[in-house]
Amino acid sequence: MKVSIIGASGYTGVELLRILHNHPNVEILFLSSQTKEDISIDKIYPHLLKVYENKFVSQQKLLDAAEQTDVIFTALPHGHSLAIGKLLQATKTKLIDLGADYRFCDESIYEKWYKLEHTHKNSGAVFGLSELNYEAIKNAKILANPGCYPTASILSLYPLIKADLIDVDTIIIDAASGTTGAGRQLRLSSHFSEVFENFTAYGVTNHRHTPEIEMFLASAFSKNITITFTPHLVPMARGILTTAYAKIKNGVTLQNLNDAYKIYADKYFIRLIGQNSPATKNTRGSNFVDIGWFLDERTNRVVALAALDNLVKGASGQAVQNMNIMFNFPQETGLNFSPVYP
Amino acid sequence: MKVSIIGASGYTGVELLRILHNHPNVEILFLSSQTKEDISIDKIYPHLLKVYENKFVSQQKLLDAAEQTDVIFTALPHGHSLAIGKLLQATKTKLIDLGADYRFCDESIYEKWYKLEHTHKNSGAVFGLSELNYEAIKNAKILANPGCYPTASILSLYPLIKADLIDVDTIIIDAASGTTGAGRQLRLSSHFSEVFENFTAYGVTNHRHTPEIEMFLASAFSKNITITFTPHLVPMARGILTTAYAKIKNGVTLQNLNDAYKIYADKYFIRLIGQNSPATKNTRGSNFVDIGWFLDERTNRVVALAALDNLVKGASGQAVQNMNIMFNFPQETGLNFSPVYP
Amino acid sequence: MKVSIIGASGYTGVELLRILHNHPNVEILFLSSQTKEDISIDKIYPHLLKVYENKFVSQQKLLDAAEQTDVIFTALPHGHSLAIGKLLQATKTKLIDLGADYRFCDESIYEKWYKLEHTHKNSGAVFGLSELNYEAIKNAKILANPGCYPTASILSLYPLIKADLIDVDTIIIDAASGTTGAGRQLRLSSHFSEVFENFTAYGVTNHRHTPEIEMFLASAFSKNITITFTPHLVPMARGILTTAYAKIKNGVTLQNLNDAYKIYADKYFIRLIGQNSPATKNTRGSNFVDIGWFLDERTNRVVALAALDNLVKGASGQAVQNMNIMFNFPQETGLNFSPVYP
Amino acid sequence: MKVSIIGASGYTGVELLRILHNHPNVEILFLSSQTKEDISIDKIYPHLLKVYENKFVSQQKLLDAAEQTDVIFTALPHGHSLAIGKLLQATKTKLIDLGADYRFCDESIYEKWYKLEHTHKNSGAVFGLSELNYEAIKNAKILANPGCYPTASILSLYPLIKADLIDVDTIIIDAASGTTGAGRQLRLSSHFSEVFENFTAYGVTNHRHTPEIEMFLASAFSKNITITFTPHLVPMARGILTTAYAKIKNGVTLQNLNDAYKIYADKYFIRLIGQNSPATKNTRGSNFVDIGWFLDERTNRVVALAALDNLVKGASGQAVQNMNIMFNFPQETGLNFSPVYP
Repeated sequence: MKVSIIGASGYTGVELLRILHNHPNVEILFLSSQTKEDISIDKIYPHLLKVYENKFVSQQKLLDAAEQTDVIFTALPHGHSLAIGKLLQATKTKLIDLGADYRFCDESIYEKWYKLEHTHKNSGAVFGLSELNYEAIKNAKILANPGCYPTASILSLYPLIKADLIDVDTIIIDAASGTTGAGRQLRLSSHFSEVFENFTAYGVTNHRHTPEIEMFLASAFSKNITITFTPHLVPMARGILTTAYAKIKNGVTLQNLNDAYKIYADKYFIRLIGQNSPATKNTRGSNFVDIGWFLDERTNRVVALAALDNLVKGASGQAVQNMNIMFNFPQETGLNFSPVYP
Repeated sequence: MKVSIIGASGYTGVELLRILHNHPNVEILFLSSQTKEDISIDKIYPHLLKVYENKFVSQQKLLDAAEQTDVIFTALPHGHSLAIGKLLQATKTKLIDLGADYRFCDESIYEKWYKLEHTHKNSGAVFGLSELNYEAIKNAKILANPGCYPTASILSLYPLIKADLIDVDTIIIDAASGTTGAGRQLRLSSHFSEVFENFTAYGVTNHRHTPEIEMFLASAFSKNITITFTPHLVPMARGILTTAYAKIKNGVTLQNLNDAYKIYADKYFIRLIGQNSPATKNTRGSNFVDIGWFLDERTNRVVALAALDNLVKGASGQAVQNMNIMFNFPQETGLNFSPVYP
Repeated sequence: MKVSIIGASGYTGVELLRILHNHPNVEILFLSSQTKEDISIDKIYPHLLKVYENKFVSQQKLLDAAEQTDVIFTALPHGHSLAIGKLLQATKTKLIDLGADYRFCDESIYEKWYKLEHTHKNSGAVFGLSELNYEAIKNAKILANPGCYPTASILSLYPLIKADLIDVDTIIIDAASGTTGAGRQLRLSSHFSEVFENFTAYGVTNHRHTPEIEMFLASAFSKNITITFTPHLVPMARGILTTAYAKIKNGVTLQNLNDAYKIYADKYFIRLIGQNSPATKNTRGSNFVDIGWFLDERTNRVVALAALDNLVKGASGQAVQNMNIMFNFPQETGLNFSPVYP
Repeated sequence: MKVSIIGASGYTGVELLRILHNHPNVEILFLSSQTKEDISIDKIYPHLLKVYENKFVSQQKLLDAAEQTDVIFTALPHGHSLAIGKLLQATKTKLIDLGADYRFCDESIYEKWYKLEHTHKNSGAVFGLSELNYEAIKNAKILANPGCYPTASILSLYPLIKADLIDVDTIIIDAASGTTGAGRQLRLSSHFSEVFENFTAYGVTNHRHTPEIEMFLASAFSKNITITFTPHLVPMARGILTTAYAKIKNGVTLQNLNDAYKIYADKYFIRLIGQNSPATKNTRGSNFVDIGWFLDERTNRVVALAALDNLVKGASGQAVQNMNIMFNFPQETGLNFSPVYP
């Protein structure tokens, strides 16, 4: 199958390339980058020398070849994928968007949190949380790949809500991410001397992944869910850990918690580690998400933790997993590699 | 005044030395270390060459000189300071213990969480949270220097409870620390290759700083307080950030929160930064603790954050601050230095 | 083919497993570890959960199955592979030793630098620098996998000596490595708080990789070569950079240097980057070695730099490359993956 | 005495402030920043809250007050201090320039390497290597504070040349620095995700500190000295280590080397550690420079290493040390603090 990537010069674009390099069914057709047209990708990313030496083309050239392309990945700032999605509606080409543009079934939430008009409503886009939305993903034309924090947060909380073990009004998610989540743009908050030996929170009470988590959980369970979400920045490149808290319902036991997570028993990329804390490093470079959980009997709270590599299961890896589902390949195709440790 | 340090070869001992080096009123008398007797400290810590070249003595020799010593600092694993405290009761020498042995007015809590018999009950020890316990500290004979996490946690929550703005049953503290909090012992969990580019939780639901936070808040407000506390390990050497959550009481406004923190207006080492997130790096090497707070109007929760250097305000700096209070020096004496940034 | 690993619980053993997981022709038979018998490897390395869940067996059990094993990798401290090599001489099983035991054709050099008697002389072992010793490797029974520093150092200097462009008496190699080179043992020099934000040299004038570099270059060119070699420790987990200096011979030009490196033109894993500095991160997780070179016209010196991942091309990756050569697979088999960046 | 700083919003400016905060004789008069006029410094650097809350003024306003200012520090990109130096010639105000503008007694070297016309020739500026140029510094009107690499390089090599122990034609300096040496500007080469877990060389054969080292050594010994100098970037914020190599002259012994370094015996900020490698972390935050040296008897070379904090002894600390010398304070005044370890 033929694959093109729009916005291939960012970290998630480059990670897609790393993964697809070992996918047995994929041929890269075109890579586009707004600012790097005609430049060979290994000039921008010397680590790709001898792996990829494609020249970036214009987005127009890439789109002109849509009919020969099975799937286009977009790895763009929010707002830039909507016109592409609209355009592709008339073709048989599928779209996997790694940005936020298609994540909200209720587009007014998008418009409120992203402060942009949504110009492609009722697109029929599917939220691509691979393990929880499998059937819908199979038939998706436009696939909205989830954010990194939402993937970890939702996967760790879903079984508890599904089994009706927690009071959803008490959910608090405290999270932490490495710096690649902020991309390659030059900002003081990504400057080595500033980030090194530093730990801080950001986006407190207003991070845009908050409504994404609420939206999916609410639609899955047909109840309104409002959460408090606080992300932090860790001085490392890759990795996300979410620590979620909620009050358990009366009489809930540790056994109930253990049982609830068994719904993931047959999901290859979810590793259940019980009463242990996951560590981001155990997932680095891989598509695994590790989930651990604890019952705090003193306070009747559950503490549920999830770790993943924000560029893999939190972005490009899950995007390939979704592509596999959409094109009837086994989910693990091209993703069956070990974490890189240490 | 003459000062000795028992357990001077650990990180908090060495940090005491760094600070006391510029204290105008202090002369170091003896340093002891169980395993390094007769070795010059700059052989163990080459960064101290030309700063301190004292030879470690035995604990016995140090204690034999107690009568000529104004204050002894103990920087020891828990359980080891109790016999020293008992011994010093008969002298006029004051004790500042950087460990946990004297932190609990109800020693049964200590015995339960530390799984050790408390052999020096009713010692009259004072909990040394400098800004909140000033009057008691002035007259302390035995001073229990608070833990690093409790210092940050309590200072950020105290004003909210004092002003009756939050429901104390809903307090959750999510915290993160650099590696020096775990000391210089050799453990796999402190091994560079393992900790680097890694973020994980530890001690979930059972960390020993939990009862310390509860105990002080409970005794200050004469009500039972039970919290959920989750520490994480950050791949950096110094720094603690605590992120605390609680439900606000009906009708509480951001202005109420802002007003509550004004009780710290005249406390030099507390820097109030309002609706900003503190960052550990802004406090590194200094005795400052930075506190920020947010009102999450969507969920009626307050998010209160505090950052400090775990070896300074979280340990040795606060110990010197307490020494200053106990000996009638201005609190800032020897501590009036700028953070080391970047 | 069937593969076993002795000493599989160290970092190079685990990296072998990561790589072999995607090798299409390899089946893992046994893993042994002196101290972890009967423990499942994912208990020691949780990142391997669902990837490898083999239990460690005793070295004896592994060796008893030698006849059914095509190749045994040893990843052991020096001195421990000699008895294994002797034992396997009577079998058809091949040995790839990642340690130093078989690297010296003149065993007296080994005995002098490693202060150990060499108990398996004239073993016929082949030095496994894949790109420079291909023909001998093809027929090796015992393969001595090169050290990490020697791989980078030799590959960067060999073309210059081969083309007779430098005065070999003036070679100085200044090198730097991440911490995984020191393994997983607990030592103060691998303690996170000590290594973090630190840069230092070690083994100055007496590092054991010195004679390994000299030995190979000397035997390749039949002249005596004595070098100065200084390694440094970088606060990162993976990666080696070597910076080598030598006086050029009279009249040597940059074009001569450029031409000399063309001998690597058809070597897939060597990436020639001309007058650019290689960066360790560009090779991380991959089997590539990047080589750059400069002519310092002011001093008539060449500066030749090489970067690689010490656990891959510097150890386990080159070991698999050598296995491929020994068993007539294409060299890239199982190694054809992209670096992990960033 | 009254002190003003031009370019106070960069890392060396801020480090000057950290140090001067505890200098008993200094009062800060004005701070200027080209782009931050009227902004309070703690808004740019929140770590300075309660330490400095001065508003930046224009450079003009600062210079208008020159007559009331004892010394002005300039921490500016090269080329920007020359006009200031010229202007101050007519006043009694002294100038300490942390940039490169006044470092070359032969300005044509400056013009060649910095590609700028030198507009203030024959200024009488003194090169401020405190330990080696003490007498000249005492009477300096314009003080050129040395670069970070030159300070370490020169201090480690000077005794060997002075005692005539090495062949100066064979000097090679391999060096490494943390990221603060590159300042606070936003560049991809200072981006956290790019620098983290990375080690690379830069400026190979053409770094601008090369002629600075050559110039001082040549003028001190009245012989032409040409060196090869290669800097590297270490993923850490602070610290420089230089590793210098040279052939020893016939018959030179380790004892000769040891004796040579005794010329520093009474220099407080130079710590001689003999046959040990210095480590940057041992000097962090302090004005110490640690020097170790080795004789490689196999190759008749000396390996001389020096470590320092690039922002302290490599910049602002040495600037204050020079100020002390110029104004007849003891050299240690305000600089007598311990390294921050770990």
